[in-house]
This record gives sequence, C-alpha cells and structure tokens, in this order.
Amino acid sequence: MHRKLLAEMIGTFILVFGGCGAAVFAANIPNEESAALATNMGFGYLGVSFAFGLTVLGCAYAFGGVSGCHLNPAVTVGLTAAGRFKPAELPGYVIAQVVGAIAASGLLYFLLQQGPDGYVITEGRLAANGYGEFSPSGYSMLAALVAEIVCTFIFLIVILGATSKHASPAAAGIAIGLTLTLIHLVDIPLTNCSVNPARSTGPAVFVGGSAIGQLWLFWVAPLAGAALAGMVSRIVNADDADAA
Amino acid sequence: MHRKLLAEMIGTFILVFGGCGAAVFAANIPNEESAALATNMGFGYLGVSFAFGLTVLGCAYAFGGVSGCHLNPAVTVGLTAAGRFKPAELPGYVIAQVVGAIAASGLLYFLLQQGPDGYVITEGRLAANGYGEFSPSGYSMLAALVAEIVCTFIFLIVILGATSKHASPAAAGIAIGLTLTLIHLVDIPLTNCSVNPARSTGPAVFVGGSAIGQLWLFWVAPLAGAALAGMVSRIVNADDADAA
Amino acid sequence: MHRKLLAEMIGTFILVFGGCGAAVFAANIPNEESAALATNMGFGYLGVSFAFGLTVLGCAYAFGGVSGCHLNPAVTVGLTAAGRFKPAELPGYVIAQVVGAIAASGLLYFLLQQGPDGYVITEGRLAANGYGEFSPSGYSMLAALVAEIVCTFIFLIVILGATSKHASPAAAGIAIGLTLTLIHLVDIPLTNCSVNPARSTGPAVFVGGSAIGQLWLFWVAPLAGAALAGMVSRIVNADDADAA
Amino acid sequence: MHRKLLAEMIGTFILVFGGCGAAVFAANIPNEESAALATNMGFGYLGVSFAFGLTVLGCAYAFGGVSGCHLNPAVTVGLTAAGRFKPAELPGYVIAQVVGAIAASGLLYFLLQQGPDGYVITEGRLAANGYGEFSPSGYSMLAALVAEIVCTFIFLIVILGATSKHASPAAAGIAIGLTLTLIHLVDIPLTNCSVNPARSTGPAVFVGGSAIGQLWLFWVAPLAGAALAGMVSRIVNADDADAA
Repeated sequence: MHRKLLAEMIGTFILVFGGCGAAVFAANIPNEESAALATNMGFGYLGVSFAFGLTVLGCAYAFGGVSGCHLNPAVTVGLTAAGRFKPAELPGYVIAQVVGAIAASGLLYFLLQQGPDGYVITEGRLAANGYGEFSPSGYSMLAALVAEIVCTFIFLIVILGATSKHASPAAAGIAIGLTLTLIHLVDIPLTNCSVNPARSTGPAVFVGGSAIGQLWLFWVAPLAGAALAGMVSRIVNADDADAA
Repeated sequence: MHRKLLAEMIGTFILVFGGCGAAVFAANIPNEESAALATNMGFGYLGVSFAFGLTVLGCAYAFGGVSGCHLNPAVTVGLTAAGRFKPAELPGYVIAQVVGAIAASGLLYFLLQQGPDGYVITEGRLAANGYGEFSPSGYSMLAALVAEIVCTFIFLIVILGATSKHASPAAAGIAIGLTLTLIHLVDIPLTNCSVNPARSTGPAVFVGGSAIGQLWLFWVAPLAGAALAGMVSRIVNADDADAA
Repeated sequence: MHRKLLAEMIGTFILVFGGCGAAVFAANIPNEESAALATNMGFGYLGVSFAFGLTVLGCAYAFGGVSGCHLNPAVTVGLTAAGRFKPAELPGYVIAQVVGAIAASGLLYFLLQQGPDGYVITEGRLAANGYGEFSPSGYSMLAALVAEIVCTFIFLIVILGATSKHASPAAAGIAIGLTLTLIHLVDIPLTNCSVNPARSTGPAVFVGGSAIGQLWLFWVAPLAGAALAGMVSRIVNADDADAA
Repeated sequence: MHRKLLAEMIGTFILVFGGCGAAVFAANIPNEESAALATNMGFGYLGVSFAFGLTVLGCAYAFGGVSGCHLNPAVTVGLTAAGRFKPAELPGYVIAQVVGAIAASGLLYFLLQQGPDGYVITEGRLAANGYGEFSPSGYSMLAALVAEIVCTFIFLIVILGATSKHASPAAAGIAIGLTLTLIHLVDIPLTNCSVNPARSTGPAVFVGGSAIGQLWLFWVAPLAGAALAGMVSRIVNADDADAA
C-alpha cells in the first residue's frame, strides 16, 4: 500500500511541477534583444500543453505498474465509477495526490522567488485555475463549468478505453498523456485547464483569496465529468457486448 | 451495434471539439501586455495540427477495439473500398459521425458566446472549411479540390497500411493520429484542412451561408481521395504478394 | 517487386509533399491583422521539422512491411553498406524514390500557383536545399558538406540500430521518424536540411539554375554519411558481440 | 565492451550535437523581412526541448540493446545507486560520454564559425549551462542547484520505473525521451537545463572562463538527484511488494 501512495504522491508532484512549472517559467519569455528583431523564446500555450501531457506520458510508464498512475482525483473517481477501482482505496489516493500537488506548487513558489525580480504571487498565481475575471481569456463561470466537465469526460473516456481489455496496453500511456495535451490545447484559454482537482489545489493553497474562492468548481466539474465517463464506459467497453 | 455507433459519435465529437476547439479558442491569443514585449500565447497552425492529430491518436486506443475508430466518413468509405468494412454498416457509421460533429460544433458555439466579447459566427466561422474567398490563404477552388483529394489519399493509405497484416497493431494509432497532424501542417492554409466530411459539416450547420454553399467540396474530395486509396491499397498491401 | 517500388514511390511522394509542403504553405504566415497584436499563424522551422519527421513516422507503419520504407537513396545505400539490403534492388528503389519526389514537387508547384499571388519559383524555391548564398542562414559550402554528412550519419545509425535484432520492432518507426524531426531542428538553418538526395532532387528539377548547380552536394554528402553509418553499424550492432 | 563504449560515445555525441545544435542554430531566427510582418522561423525553448528529448528517444531504440543508452553520467550513477548497473563499468561509461559530448561541442563550434558572421564563443556560449549572471532568466545559484537536483530526480525516477519489470519495454524509450523534453520545458529558463554532466562539460571546454567556473554545479546537482532517485526507486519499484 505504501508503494502505491508514494507513487501517486511523486507522480502528482511531477505533474504539477512539470506542467505548472513550464507555464510560470517559460510560457512568456520575450527575447532580451529588441522584440521586433528576435524570436520570443517562450512557448505560450503549446509548450504548456505538451508539458502537462508529457508528465502523464512519462509517469504512466514509470508508475503505471505500481499504482495505476492516476495522479488525479478525477481519474480515481472515474475508475471507481467504471467499477475498475476499489472504493476503499480512493481516500488514500486522493490525499497522496493533493499532498504531491501542494509540495510541487510550494517548490515552484520558492524557485520563482529566486529569480532576479522576485515573484508577486497574487499576480503570477502559480498557474492557478480560474474563471470569469481569472479566466485567461475572460470566460464565464458557466463556460468554465461546462468546459471542465466535457474535457474531463474526454480524458476519462480515453483512459477507460485505452486501458480496457480490447486495447494495446503498451501504448496506453502515450494515448492518455497526449490526450491530456489535447485537452490543454482547447481548455487553457477558458480556465487555464484543470481536469484535475489536485492540480488546482496545489497553486490555490499558496495564492489564496480568489484561487481558493474558485476552487470548488475545479473539484465539482472534473469529478462530475469523470463520473459521467465512468458510467458511459460501462456501455462502450462492455465486455459482453456483441461485435455487431 | 449500439456500442459501435456510440463510440463513433463520441469519438467524432472529440475530434471536432478538440481540433476546431483549439483553433477557435487558442490559435490566436496575443499577450495582454505590449505585444512587442511579450510572447503570443496562441499557437497558430502548429497547435491546431497537433490538436486534430491527438484527438485521433487518443481515440484510436479508446475506441479502436470497439468500432475501429473511423470518426470520418472518408475513412469508412476508404475501408469499404479496400474491402475491409461491410457496406451494410456504412450508413449508420456516417450518421453517427455527423451527429457527433454537429454536437461538438454546437457546444463550441455555446462556449464562445460565453467569452467577454461574445462571438460573431459569420466572422469566426467555428473553424469551418473553405476555398477561394474562405480559404485561409486565399487558394482557389481547384487547389482546394486537389489538396483535399491528395491529403485524404495520404491519410487513408497510411491507415490502410498501418492496420494491415504486415504492420504492428500497437503502434497504428500513433502513426495514424500523427499523420493527421502532418496533413494539417500542409493543408490548413489551403482549406483549413478537412479530409473529413463530418468535421466540415459540424461548423457549416451553424455558420450557414458560404459554409453550406462550399460544403459539397468537403464531401466530394475526401470521399474521392479515400476511395482511390482503398483501391491502391489492394495492390500495395496485397496479401498474396511475393517478397521480392 | 512492383509492390515494393510502388510503396517507395508513394512514400517518397508523401515525404516531399508533406515536408516541403508544410515549408512552402505554412512556415511563414503573418496574421492578417496587425502583426503586433496577433499571433503569427505560421510555425517556422519547428512545424517544418515535425512535418518531415511525421511523414516518415506514418509511412514506416504503412509501408515498412512492404518495402522497408526507405523513401531515401541514402537509407537504401546505408542499409546496403551495413549488409542488410541486396545491392541488386538498389537502382530500382532509388529511381522510384526520385520519381515520387519529383511528382510531389510538381504538385506543390501547381498548388502554389493557385494562390492569390501566384508563385515566383526562383524566389520561393519550393523548399529546395542550398548552401552559401542559398543556405537559409548563409552557411558555407564546407559547413553544408559537414552538416549533411553528420546528420545523415545520425539518421542512419538510428535506423540501423532501431531495426536491428536487439531492438523493439513496434517502436522503430516512431524512433526513426522523430529522429528525422530532430535532424531538421538542427540542420534547416544550414542547408534547409536534406539528408535525402531524392528530397533534394524534387524541388531542384523545377527551380533549376542554382538548385541544380548545388544538387551534387545533396547527393554526395548524404550518401557518404550513410555509407559511414553502415560501416560503423557493423561494429555497434555486431550480432556476435559479447554483452560486456 | 568496446561496442558499449562506442555506443555511449556516439549516443552522447548525438545528444549534444542535436540538443545544443538546435539551440545555437535555430532557437532564435528572426525572419529576414520586417519582423512585424513575418513569422519568426526560430522555435525558442519549445524546439530546443523537443530536440534534446528526441535525441534520447531515437538513441534509446538505436543503442538501448547495446549499452543501455545512458548518454549521461547521472543516468549511469542513478542506475548504479538502484543496484541495476555494475560499478566496475561506471568509469568507462562516464569517460565515453564526456568524450562524445566534447566532440559534439567542438563540431558545433566549427560549424558556427562557418556562418556569415562568424561566432563569438564568449557571447554565444555554445548553449552552455549557467546560473546567476549566466542563467537565461537570471535565477540564483540556489535555484539552479535545487532545480537541477529535482529535474534529474524526475528524469531518473521515470527511467528506473519505465525500465523496471512491471513496465512495457517497447515504450520505455518514448517515455524517457519525452520526459527529457518535459524537463527542458521547465528548466531551460533557470540553467539552460543540464541534468547531464557530460552535456554541460562539452560546451564548457570550449567556452572556458565562467562556464568552467560554474561547471561544478552541473556535476554535483545531477549526480545527487540521480542517486536520490536510485534510492527511492528501490522502494517504489520493490519487486517483492504486495499488490495492495
């Protein structure tokens, strides 16, 4: 049991350190020379999307055989809803995930303060999620709620299909990780993309205020989308279904 | 049968929501600060190309064992032309694909209206395909017709080869998804890249007017390219061919 | 035999249409609105590098089991030098590759002329390779020669290792395709990146003049690098070598 | 034994030539036309991150079956700490890696001097690593130390998990290579990203001065992070652990 929780904690640490770290350090880096004559070295939403996806891709092969590599309370809930994870193990997994996420955000905060200009946490927000005023492109709470439900549904329906009996197990981590990249390519402008309550909780603990005030949505919507996917998966991946 | 159609509908929903969603939300996002001093956070055609490809990559592993994961009437037609899909199942697949695509475009339209400035659908066009005046770079109808035929041919010849007896089944979804990315890297400037009549129909239903008027090309050309690939595949992937 | 040559011709067509097509259509697309306030939708050298690599990745799974999916005279020569391809088949392969490349460049030229401003082939050069005055960043002939030898050596040593007995066959196409992406990430500024005489010949036939005059280097250097890799591979991948 | 060392030398040459080469040639290439109206063709930190990762991805399949494809003294130390590599072989591996890295940096220096404007090595620095004044974004020595330890820990914990008995061997190279990409997406702004003492030594030998003076950190921190991961891996990947 300890091995599993350790794997979930380290894996979620990697997810938040890697994904949120790419966002805060490298998404926006104008070149030191005249911006008009030089490439911006930062990589915007594309690099952040790959960073999040590649954390899961790498960890899937590192920890998949140990804990299943959930790294996300929504994944744990979705697998439980699909009847593929023991409810008794759920609380331990979620706690390990949240602890790992908070540790990663704390480390990012420490590192950012070591930069030449320090770090004002209420402005940088450690890549926290948000809606309305705190949505990157100013999308409403309703849009955030719908987008997080749909995106988490997509993430879980791919996870549940790619790890089902009819799929190739060796490729599942690639499919799942790159699906997380895909979801970020769509959802960052709306909410900074959560689909993972632990990932949202990490920065919120340090940013406080608005980030804590909006945190409920990033628990409710991903868990709802995941539970929905778990139920739909029982139909789509039905073991006893006929072939035609 | 229901499982297959449900998989095709959900999968095509993911394809359009993911690919067109990345295009409408995140392709063009100038940084809020002075553009000259900041990275543009949007990712242009590169991110859109990856988004489309990664939807198919992820869904191939999620739904491949259920429905074959076509998500595209041209794929269904190409497999039929190659003698690898039952004609009787074709209509159901195409209907499920179109329904999923329209649902995704409708959801994108809803979300876009929740942004701070609303959404003028005749300008944004929900990432609809087009030629001539509506080609992103102004390419002619003839160029669009040729490009869509050739690109769909490429897509299908890879699908048919990568899923043939001589290939590694575990890697097929990666090869196919990333080939769709490749095709978008070439074809977005010409037509916004269809190679998929369902993907074209989704936005056109809501945009109306010019998008409906040009929709014929994005059914005719992909289906022609796919049928051609199906016939060529009978030669290239001939089971009884000798090794030299 | 016909199947193999057809596969090589179609595959090399895809390589040139995809890689050079991404370069000519989409590498440089300033946004129509004020450039200072909008994302450039084009993807520069990163997207071109992925385009070339993904053509090979996709085709490896589509045609690998038919022809071995060389798509490149340097690959055919390198495999022959390593003792893994019959010299008698070499001429046919090379001819099929060159024919496919020329057809792709011709099609790109046709499509470019269908754009709103036509296409001046001596300026756009169909993504031809070059050195000195025609090197994208102005690198000398000596630098071009060395870079093409080294980059082709890298490409072939990966191909020869990834398809040797000690490797995982299912992943070889991914490793090989993404290594071609890597090589382009380094070599485009020097020569526009060839490592493939067929890919260089395709555009040169239509551009003429300087492109034909410099074409010798893009046959000599890749073939030399490939032959060198073939010989080194006999040591590195020796079947009878001891494990320590 | 010679085969293994040759593989490590060639592989580390590829890693430094590919990763540092992408950085020095192509990270920053403003378009020749008015920058305001043209795409920057260079790819900033995103392309550099992919270049480093793809060298390892390709080499993993080319050399994994020969030498294990470490290409990095920290990897060799981490595997030794985990009890999965013979200490007696460690010195030979490290020497071969450092020789390969220095050769690659020397070649890059030669090529850069062949460009139209030559190359001032104390300014360009051959993509050397650095902290404080020489950190790309000006991060402190303490931040560099912590970031390199944490990032190398992440790299090694993925390597050790993805190559353990419970993982899919065919996908390990993809997981490991793309995890190196991930680490670069986070760590380039802090130190130019090392996590590999050989990769740091290559450019430092030619740049001299500050690069040599700061080189100690890029040996100490990666080796410490790797050793830590080796010890943690003994717990996480314990063969005798129970399943729940």
